[in-house]
Amino acid sequence: MHILNEINTNPDLRSLPEEKLPELCSEIRRFLIETISKTGGHLASNLGAVELTVALHRVYDPMRDRIVFDVGHQSYTHKLLTGRRSGFDRLRKSGGVSGFPKPGESMADAFVAGHASDSVSIALGMARARTNLGGDYDVVAVIGDGALTGGLAYEGLSNAGQSGEPLVVVLNDNAMSIGSNVGGMARLLSRMRVKPGYIGFKRWYRSTVGRIKPLYNAIHRVKEGVKDAVLPGNMFDDLGFYYLGPVNGHDIAALESAISWARDMRVPVLVHVLTKKGRGYPFAELHPDKYHGVGPFDLQTGVIKSGGRTFSAEFGDTLCRIAEGNGRVMALTAAMEDGTGLSRFAEKFPNRFFDSGIAEEHMVSMAAGMAKQGLVPVVAVYSTFLQRSYDQLIHDVSLLGLHVVFAVDRAGLVGEDGETHHGVFDVAYLSTVPGMKVLCPASFAELREMLRSAVEDMDGPVAVRYPRGGEGRYRDCRAERAALLREGTDVTLVAYGTMINEALEAAEELSGRGVSAEVIKLGQVCPIDTGSVYSSLKKTGRIVIAEEVCAAGSAGMNILACAAGKLKFAARLLNLGSGIAQQGTTAELRAAAGIDAAGIVKAAMELM
Amino acid sequence: MHILNEINTNPDLRSLPEEKLPELCSEIRRFLIETISKTGGHLASNLGAVELTVALHRVYDPMRDRIVFDVGHQSYTHKLLTGRRSGFDRLRKSGGVSGFPKPGESMADAFVAGHASDSVSIALGMARARTNLGGDYDVVAVIGDGALTGGLAYEGLSNAGQSGEPLVVVLNDNAMSIGSNVGGMARLLSRMRVKPGYIGFKRWYRSTVGRIKPLYNAIHRVKEGVKDAVLPGNMFDDLGFYYLGPVNGHDIAALESAISWARDMRVPVLVHVLTKKGRGYPFAELHPDKYHGVGPFDLQTGVIKSGGRTFSAEFGDTLCRIAEGNGRVMALTAAMEDGTGLSRFAEKFPNRFFDSGIAEEHMVSMAAGMAKQGLVPVVAVYSTFLQRSYDQLIHDVSLLGLHVVFAVDRAGLVGEDGETHHGVFDVAYLSTVPGMKVLCPASFAELREMLRSAVEDMDGPVAVRYPRGGEGRYRDCRAERAALLREGTDVTLVAYGTMINEALEAAEELSGRGVSAEVIKLGQVCPIDTGSVYSSLKKTGRIVIAEEVCAAGSAGMNILACAAGKLKFAARLLNLGSGIAQQGTTAELRAAAGIDAAGIVKAAMELM
Repeated sequence: MHILNEINTNPDLRSLPEEKLPELCSEIRRFLIETISKTGGHLASNLGAVELTVALHRVYDPMRDRIVFDVGHQSYTHKLLTGRRSGFDRLRKSGGVSGFPKPGESMADAFVAGHASDSVSIALGMARARTNLGGDYDVVAVIGDGALTGGLAYEGLSNAGQSGEPLVVVLNDNAMSIGSNVGGMARLLSRMRVKPGYIGFKRWYRSTVGRIKPLYNAIHRVKEGVKDAVLPGNMFDDLGFYYLGPVNGHDIAALESAISWARDMRVPVLVHVLTKKGRGYPFAELHPDKYHGVGPFDLQTGVIKSGGRTFSAEFGDTLCRIAEGNGRVMALTAAMEDGTGLSRFAEKFPNRFFDSGIAEEHMVSMAAGMAKQGLVPVVAVYSTFLQRSYDQLIHDVSLLGLHVVFAVDRAGLVGEDGETHHGVFDVAYLSTVPGMKVLCPASFAELREMLRSAVEDMDGPVAVRYPRGGEGRYRDCRAERAALLREGTDVTLVAYGTMINEALEAAEELSGRGVSAEVIKLGQVCPIDTGSVYSSLKKTGRIVIAEEVCAAGSAGMNILACAAGKLKFAARLLNLGSGIAQQGTTAELRAAAGIDAAGIVKAAMELM
Repeated sequence: MHILNEINTNPDLRSLPEEKLPELCSEIRRFLIETISKTGGHLASNLGAVELTVALHRVYDPMRDRIVFDVGHQSYTHKLLTGRRSGFDRLRKSGGVSGFPKPGESMADAFVAGHASDSVSIALGMARARTNLGGDYDVVAVIGDGALTGGLAYEGLSNAGQSGEPLVVVLNDNAMSIGSNVGGMARLLSRMRVKPGYIGFKRWYRSTVGRIKPLYNAIHRVKEGVKDAVLPGNMFDDLGFYYLGPVNGHDIAALESAISWARDMRVPVLVHVLTKKGRGYPFAELHPDKYHGVGPFDLQTGVIKSGGRTFSAEFGDTLCRIAEGNGRVMALTAAMEDGTGLSRFAEKFPNRFFDSGIAEEHMVSMAAGMAKQGLVPVVAVYSTFLQRSYDQLIHDVSLLGLHVVFAVDRAGLVGEDGETHHGVFDVAYLSTVPGMKVLCPASFAELREMLRSAVEDMDGPVAVRYPRGGEGRYRDCRAERAALLREGTDVTLVAYGTMINEALEAAEELSGRGVSAEVIKLGQVCPIDTGSVYSSLKKTGRIVIAEEVCAAGSAGMNILACAAGKLKFAARLLNLGSGIAQQGTTAELRAAAGIDAAGIVKAAMELM
């Protein structure tokens, strides 16, 4: 790594002779593969964007100009080139470098990222601020073809194209995204990839006709007409962008030339760059999906270290079984076939599996249309991404009381992905949706039973929420709305989902300290069976409610409000408060928030 | 109205001789203008869609086929033609015909509508259900050019275009939408409008080449290439739709022919229809914006009956004053310049006013980008539409603690627009956003002060929420987080916003009954100053909290949770519960929910 080791600032990179760049890129790839094999992280997307990032850093000054990465899982090279190499041994770990851009980490990170499709909107806002305040910097958005399936990207492009703001959008097209791309945008891009790039034509045109201003002006209108008639028009032209491309995304010279030309045009320009996801690591090139977001793996064999059975896998298998017996059951995902455990379903029932692309809003509205006409759609989605569909939940699903089942994966703390990905708001926002039921399995057995019940026995909107990863020591199946798991007399402990393991452990520990704890597990947090909790509280006079969600709208608040005024008691709500949980393992984060077994014990002891 | 009076079912319309259709359309227009002049409602959009709706009803059977209206404010003719004429004297009134499609009203209403851009997604879901369950019906979405600026429509088109599902999307292009259209889509459509329609070419092609199947297949690939090269391609082609148009939207024969041809193609087809908003009522043709959603007006002069000073107008004027003194202040709207009171701002500060089109997600992300680079964006948006941006509030604004001010208009019950438009979830969902402050002015004076303070004194995300319409008897300015408006000893009444008028009136009434009520007005519902309320509760031992929001996540629940266990007291939470509020005047709806003065008195007396 003798070249990479010398690159600490942007001037270091710029002063590097051009012929050394390929070697630098090789070193970066080696560094990324070695690091991620140990820490886990986003491998394939970062390997595809090495040359593109180097070129961006040679055209733009990352400390002054604003490079807005979409999703941000392709920003590792950007971090390596801006002085954060040494932080990579704690990549995505508590206190270490984040797997996503994070302005708190460096001035070079223009904005936070994690959710898809917002980069053009963010960049347009920045460009407008720049223009309005007379700032002297450039703004560029870097967005993948997957994120382009999101409607937010279209809204941003449409508004930016019309704005006339000097602004560059680099489309990092790896023809893949997280899953295989779906929908019209993928079709459009695949057609454009094989067309002769007309960057050549445009460059010739500008360098000859463009020199003679009156001629340029006179000819401009004609040219636009001609272009419409004979040149391959595309959506980006339609939306007001000047389209350049396609450009080979692994040819640094071509990239530098196209991007700097785009920067200098002082209008909205889209540069279409073709990259190969996973480039430089054969296993990742072959299976970019598998190596998208990956745990630690063996460098030589590519074998990914197994993480054990997950709720996602359990969901996918259970849904297959349910679907075998019920032809009305459909599965929907927004570009997360693998992550949500639906791969087997997709294989078994290709006509009943629908991947909307990164388009959570559309997915939920489409599910509503399906349900209205007699299907039973099961929407598999990460908690944090379902936030995108909050309005569709209310307006399209709830107002008509439609039976749509939401399999809300990654509910609660998600660990290493950090701030942008925690699923800690769903209990609150789902509870506001009229008619919504929210079920919270605490074990695989409960997930199986609750999912079956949600599909077969219930009506109206139903959410089944479960965490990332697997079950803990609790493996029973007590699917009722509130279950008394342990009787006690001194204090009532309430929890749901896998947090029940913390409550049970706390009860053990308290027992050792001579405190008799009663443990109630909620199987459903909306509507809550407050009666059972209240009965226990009347007996013990003390209550600790521990949840892995934000304070506002929490089940604990709901329970206390129902008990309020009726009797005197001592209460402690343990949750994530109103702040933002950071990155780290779930165990670390639970401990930091004081919602783990130790935190519950501490709270209970304070009440005694 | 001798023709209209004879049309009660779809067969009645179909059996009408073609030459009578223009007269029918004239009668419908007369009926609409006369009715809406008395009841108020959506005038201009409905006048523009008369012929289109008649044509749709002659091609499709509205009771069997599924006509999915986008937004739905163009569905009056559809309602007139499906047996609901007599209900129009109570249009948008309690118990009367809804101003939007409503499946509970008639089988002819395929889906609920009110929020924009979801029709293609809903229709695709229905088409997939149809295909999967072997149903024998057609599905058509009717969407305006305004709704097409929403990313959800793009997501739907992209997925539908790729699906191959037989499905027709009718683009009702009036070149206007609610405000003037903005962004690339408007630019694209305006170019397409003046192009020679190539429906003629396509029809010739199909009727000749299409007859000889092998020739058709052989030539198909060549044709696609040729079309790309010489025909004006457009975004709809790119997304996988077969594009037909433009068609004159006031020529019933042309419409019938294009739509039935589209229906018979058995692939995704987009029919581009050009209509004139407000057609047939000169005042509305001239000022379609003014007559979009309109109160009662004088039939002869077009003069709209004044509704008095509103919070929206007060907001707009105040923001102008603030902006005069602070060059960093920008105003943003999503196609609601007029509705949110920003027209004067737009005129005074054209470079600091940004209309994103119907694109709430983009608007909020763009505001985040602006704030990150030093501007102070003020986002003016209806409470119900801000639901669309829930994820952007968390991910783009809150994670970086950006100072974006949200002017949340139409917060609480909105009256006649009914189920789809009530702004009754914002207190709950805004309270979950980390760092969010939610201010609740109860008078114009408070709005002025709180808006100034939100822009000038505060940091991070701040929402100022205020209702549709004007202030009540309470006109003071007590902008603090919790204000004691009236001292009492028997019961504490808590309210915020204009609901304070109900609380004060209730206190008066209670006083007459010998009950001494203390009244606390919350100026901020997140975070709440629970201390003040608790102090009062300690004194009175009884509390009634009255709110115009849903129960989950309400301020009342929050207050009770904080007081829980500490003392014994009697409490009543008055709110809208977990159901869905209907249409009617705000007074009627408050009474029905028991949150008006009478309801508060009743609850307080029950506690005594």
